[in-house]
Amino acid sequence: MSEIVQDGTLVSQVMASIRDRISARNLLAGDKLPSIRSCARQMGVSNSTVVEAYDRLVADGTIQSRRGSGFYVSGHTAPLSIARIGPKLDRAVDPFWVSRQSLDARPDMLKPGCGWLPADWMPETSIRRALRTLARASDDVLVEYGTPLGLAPLRQLLSRRLAGHGIVTDPDQILLTESGTQAIDMLCRFLIEPGDTVLVDDPCYFNFCALLRAHRANIISVPFTPTGPDIDTFARVVSDHKPRLYITNSGIHNPTGASLSPQTAHRILNIADQHDLIIIEDDIFADFETTPAPRLAALGGMDRVIHIGSFSKTLSASLRCGYIASRSDWIDQLIDLKVATGFSGSNLAPELIHLVLKDGTYRKHMDGLRTRLSHAMTGTAKQLASLGIRPVITPDPGIFLWCALPDGIDAAQTARNALANGVVLAPGNVFSISQSAGNLMRFNVAQCQHPKIFKVLERAMRP
Amino acid sequence: MSEIVQDGTLVSQVMASIRDRISARNLLAGDKLPSIRSCARQMGVSNSTVVEAYDRLVADGTIQSRRGSGFYVSGHTAPLSIARIGPKLDRAVDPFWVSRQSLDARPDMLKPGCGWLPADWMPETSIRRALRTLARASDDVLVEYGTPLGLAPLRQLLSRRLAGHGIVTDPDQILLTESGTQAIDMLCRFLIEPGDTVLVDDPCYFNFCALLRAHRANIISVPFTPTGPDIDTFARVVSDHKPRLYITNSGIHNPTGASLSPQTAHRILNIADQHDLIIIEDDIFADFETTPAPRLAALGGMDRVIHIGSFSKTLSASLRCGYIASRSDWIDQLIDLKVATGFSGSNLAPELIHLVLKDGTYRKHMDGLRTRLSHAMTGTAKQLASLGIRPVITPDPGIFLWCALPDGIDAAQTARNALANGVVLAPGNVFSISQSAGNLMRFNVAQCQHPKIFKVLERAMRP
Repeated sequence: MSEIVQDGTLVSQVMASIRDRISARNLLAGDKLPSIRSCARQMGVSNSTVVEAYDRLVADGTIQSRRGSGFYVSGHTAPLSIARIGPKLDRAVDPFWVSRQSLDARPDMLKPGCGWLPADWMPETSIRRALRTLARASDDVLVEYGTPLGLAPLRQLLSRRLAGHGIVTDPDQILLTESGTQAIDMLCRFLIEPGDTVLVDDPCYFNFCALLRAHRANIISVPFTPTGPDIDTFARVVSDHKPRLYITNSGIHNPTGASLSPQTAHRILNIADQHDLIIIEDDIFADFETTPAPRLAALGGMDRVIHIGSFSKTLSASLRCGYIASRSDWIDQLIDLKVATGFSGSNLAPELIHLVLKDGTYRKHMDGLRTRLSHAMTGTAKQLASLGIRPVITPDPGIFLWCALPDGIDAAQTARNALANGVVLAPGNVFSISQSAGNLMRFNVAQCQHPKIFKVLERAMRP
Repeated sequence: MSEIVQDGTLVSQVMASIRDRISARNLLAGDKLPSIRSCARQMGVSNSTVVEAYDRLVADGTIQSRRGSGFYVSGHTAPLSIARIGPKLDRAVDPFWVSRQSLDARPDMLKPGCGWLPADWMPETSIRRALRTLARASDDVLVEYGTPLGLAPLRQLLSRRLAGHGIVTDPDQILLTESGTQAIDMLCRFLIEPGDTVLVDDPCYFNFCALLRAHRANIISVPFTPTGPDIDTFARVVSDHKPRLYITNSGIHNPTGASLSPQTAHRILNIADQHDLIIIEDDIFADFETTPAPRLAALGGMDRVIHIGSFSKTLSASLRCGYIASRSDWIDQLIDLKVATGFSGSNLAPELIHLVLKDGTYRKHMDGLRTRLSHAMTGTAKQLASLGIRPVITPDPGIFLWCALPDGIDAAQTARNALANGVVLAPGNVFSISQSAGNLMRFNVAQCQHPKIFKVLERAMRP
């Protein structure tokens, strides 16, 4: 009993562990729990700690005791909780933290941690014009389902745009999706099953991990350098763990802003060929580039590289539309999956996007945006430097600065402090599978235009 | 060798069986195939048939022979193909047949087999007006992400509409999704895992099965009667197979057009309580009802009934937006799933839908639609009767007539014949897990307005 009295948290830990196993459905309703003795051995606690934990779980109805037989999980099986499938992280460094804080932010909050541009940087005049044009479109555009592949003129335009990056795809090899995220989600359903190993960069876009957790993939990572993944580690990890899939950004890597070098691209493709690794190249920031990075889909062709993108970052997050460019045989099977899981798409967002993209003003909008981002990058870097915050990588202008905080400052704690003062930050560990970015932080330079941000940041970093 | 010469199809069968096991990923790249002898024994064919099949699979690169060691699956692991996960059905009665034929149909094709209204039955004037209004909306509506729950005024309006059906939900218990199908898809991800058993009606909406196959659920079914599932069979099947989930339509059941009786609803809920069964009530046809059926979510509350819907059928298939009404604790976890798998939604379609729904003309549109459907139902039934085709169930006017073809006429063959003449039909077995509806067919009365349909149908039924 002394152990319990001394440390009630041991009992809580045992309870949490059982609850997690029920949430993750490793234990189902009616399943027998391990015996007191074996649970104690497994968790390295005393029998009496387990007795107390089981008693409390009986009291709250989670488990039931059957006399002479043992303990069993109670009737209601909890639904699958993706928050519980992976390791239970502190909410401040949970991959959902930034998404949900950014998406749920009150209008008066400042969001240097979010991944998109401020509303007034977007081509709203063109979108308004497109909406008025659409109000005069034919009936079927307004009320009918789109075809499963999606609006043909937009796919033709995408095919030409991809050709500009050296990526050769027929319009029929392009499948429109609801968003870039949904494109990756659909591909994960198509390519992996629970327990399959998937490789990501460390750091990488936090939602890759949230998404892969929802697929119950085994996530492994390789350190990311200013020219792409550390290629020797990449080779070793691929050879050792035989991942099925590698997800990455070639141009404007999220969160580092780095670009893949041609040499690294070439080596990635050779390693992938050797080990039958499929690559998803997520290119949603393509239009922000000033000097285009090489694309894996251009170098390696579509045999094992799948290229995806969307318009959320450059045009409008409200016009939900992404795309998958891939091999014809895979596209045909992906159509079945699209119909099964979302029926068909709509032509509405694709029509609006097509109207805006073919509008001559879009190119001018993007030129202006790149100039504006380049200034914002310089200005933000200077402001951050004055607080002792320095970029780890000096990117080709894009939207992200991946920075080290002054020594000893914890990014997660800083983010929590800043949130209390109306500023949403993106602490490094939400991007890091290895949790090795506790001192780092991603800044979206377009969202760093308000002086209040740097005042709050300074205060938030104080011990 | 005589066996091969006599019946080359045996070799093809062995080849197809190996290919299916690779597609379904029961055999992975590098896995060893069963020995010639053991494969022959398993499939009940001669050794020489297997030798020939393996030789041909080596020739086309599917497998490799390693001298002295045996046969191995070649390098590229095929992606998961949902078409192959379930039983390989004849394409004419594959659940995707109707979807893909309807969605890909050329404009001149007639589609009595599809599940939605013709474009000119939809409230296009209201939609055009809404688009013009939206062209004047504030920036953030046009270019920003929506909140994860989705547009608040639409959720408030939905909450009031649901209250009209006796379903009590707070607006914060309603999560907007990309579509009704996506709502069910998200719930399946949340509630089931591969191998879990899910119960559906027989017949049921074909896409339930396509969707459940994509989740690799074990699908079981209960015969559907004019008042709901056959309740004694339902009780027995639930008790024997302990399904985790039951998916159904309470009002205007697809494909039968039937409505749940209050007594059956009550018994379903009691059985569900007894066996911890969760129910998804898909209510997308709600607004077509003339006499509302009881709703399981109204009778049983939200504890184990999840209510979903969309606007694709009554307003516009192009305004992609569905919703999930459920328990608060589940909604909160579903938000994480929505963010992980699709990031956030857009406000665009929800804003348009909200504008149309709150427009006074929507109610008038729906009143007109119900009258028009009621006339179409009478007219179609008469036309079908003249061909010897009779409804199995006489529905409260809705959009579907579930009919028996004359004795001895095969619906799948009839559908194939009609397709060759530009008419997409919906043969019974695409709706039937037990494949017991070979003589039945679903007609969408709103899509049966062209006389050509009945001429083609008559010819297509000729032996």
